[in-house]
Amino acid sequence: MHSIGYFQSIIQKKIDGFCRVNGTEEILQPVNYIIQLPAKRMRPVLALMSANLFADEVEEIIYPALALEVFHNFTLMHDDIMDNAPLRRGNVTVHEKWNTNTAILSGDAMMIQAYQLMCKAPAENLKDVLSVFSTTALEVCIGQERDMQFEKRNDVTVQEYMEMIRLKTSVLVAGAMKIGAIISGASEKDQQMLYSFGENMGIAFQLWDDYLDAFGDQSKVGKQKGGDIIADKKTFLLLKAIALSNDAEKEIIEKYKGASPAHNAEKVVAIMRIFENLNLKELLQNEMKFYYDAALASMQQVAVADERKKPLLHFAESIMQRDR
Amino acid sequence: MHSIGYFQSIIQKKIDGFCRVNGTEEILQPVNYIIQLPAKRMRPVLALMSANLFADEVEEIIYPALALEVFHNFTLMHDDIMDNAPLRRGNVTVHEKWNTNTAILSGDAMMIQAYQLMCKAPAENLKDVLSVFSTTALEVCIGQERDMQFEKRNDVTVQEYMEMIRLKTSVLVAGAMKIGAIISGASEKDQQMLYSFGENMGIAFQLWDDYLDAFGDQSKVGKQKGGDIIADKKTFLLLKAIALSNDAEKEIIEKYKGASPAHNAEKVVAIMRIFENLNLKELLQNEMKFYYDAALASMQQVAVADERKKPLLHFAESIMQRDR
Repeated sequence: MHSIGYFQSIIQKKIDGFCRVNGTEEILQPVNYIIQLPAKRMRPVLALMSANLFADEVEEIIYPALALEVFHNFTLMHDDIMDNAPLRRGNVTVHEKWNTNTAILSGDAMMIQAYQLMCKAPAENLKDVLSVFSTTALEVCIGQERDMQFEKRNDVTVQEYMEMIRLKTSVLVAGAMKIGAIISGASEKDQQMLYSFGENMGIAFQLWDDYLDAFGDQSKVGKQKGGDIIADKKTFLLLKAIALSNDAEKEIIEKYKGASPAHNAEKVVAIMRIFENLNLKELLQNEMKFYYDAALASMQQVAVADERKKPLLHFAESIMQRDR
Repeated sequence: MHSIGYFQSIIQKKIDGFCRVNGTEEILQPVNYIIQLPAKRMRPVLALMSANLFADEVEEIIYPALALEVFHNFTLMHDDIMDNAPLRRGNVTVHEKWNTNTAILSGDAMMIQAYQLMCKAPAENLKDVLSVFSTTALEVCIGQERDMQFEKRNDVTVQEYMEMIRLKTSVLVAGAMKIGAIISGASEKDQQMLYSFGENMGIAFQLWDDYLDAFGDQSKVGKQKGGDIIADKKTFLLLKAIALSNDAEKEIIEKYKGASPAHNAEKVVAIMRIFENLNLKELLQNEMKFYYDAALASMQQVAVADERKKPLLHFAESIMQRDR
């Protein structure tokens, strides 16, 4: 069994090699730039850890794992255009550093490269692996589309939000785990259980982001507390607040929508008070625990010795305890 | 042996089915829109014709052929954003009918769908087919990148232009023919010859576009004569003119660059006179003939009976005689 750090270093080495092969071809410079921004490499690491449950040797999973990271970064490159984002991981976004056309085209090239890497999966698994990958990839696009639609809508439900984050974030984590399982020869049931583990962990992970924004220890979170509140972002908390609030509270939420930056501080205080009145901290914690437990239940059904599951369970636990 | 019309109707039926499956999913509406604009379906038809050289039954090539058409239309959707084009095949472009973000995201979804269709290739050919497809797809992106760079540069050579159109246009035609050959069980040499046939035909086809713009029968071409000249488009003719012209001619070319629309008519006359002085009509005809002959020479080496080659040769001939 290998550690997360070990897998991260394997992936980083492969990324370095990938960038060297890309060389100085102009269209691939933004690809090399975005993939080398500091990142946790969560998806490829999870694919490798998933494979490592069933096999000691995970060599065959490295390129497909890298494909997931390349694909993920492609989605970031295009999402940043659509979201008009100036920064990504603390650095200038591709469309700002180059221009929008370059970000579109280099993103396209990057997606093709993701498929090229995924095609290095063993021939006997290729059809299955590509099927999971493409289905997942399409769902990620649909998730992004929903997210953009939500910005324009005033009637988004909590249920719709949960489905959006499942599509935009969770399915790629789930797909990563399933691809690792497929290539390492897991049974179909185990593949499905790992997909389910990743899917539920992904949702819990995303909800944790919502939690940290409102209830995190600001000295550790490392960003402005209530950033989502200030941006009127339709998170689990805001949507739940809208659903559960009384008329007076609804009026307050409405009043602060799109408020000028001068009112940011009082806005955060006012909205946070509503969150507290409605017991949303506890509600969100319960919600996260629901998905976390569902993930653990799926893992329990995976037919390998408990000993082998420890790194993944430890990883899951660490995600639910992270403070930023 | 089947006719072009027969293959076109097969592809159209599959496109209709593809659109039905896409249904009402919002992100796929622009996909359904662009793929249903009237088109010749050249790439999928050529893939099927290529396969039909070697096999009477081409059922297994239909989905990969459709994948090529879906991919081609994806490139059009994204190119239209980059080129700021209002119209595509006489209809409003996707980014105009919806918006840029939708065109980016639906284009991404469309590329994934192209891969999903390509993955319906027979398992035993999948790795080879995807390898050709991805290599080609990446080259198409590089071709588009070069094309955009050329707009900003003043020192583009004819040689660079030829390489750009090879990447942007020809390799996908070539790849289509090779994919058809692979799946229908052609030998590696025959696969290579068909690739070469498509590559050379693609270049001849593109040069013919340049020819028609300047020397075509306007009543048949169906668009403004000298449209490329007016737009200062760096075509074979303009680049050759710049390379071969004397100082007086160079001055005229320079003078009309970016001229106001009021001077369009005299601009076309002046530049056309230079083309005539430099014998560029004949030069371009020779260039086209060079690639056309190269294509025929490749076809000659394909190890099937001449009788089977007739439809493809007829198709090649018709392309070189088209008047729009």
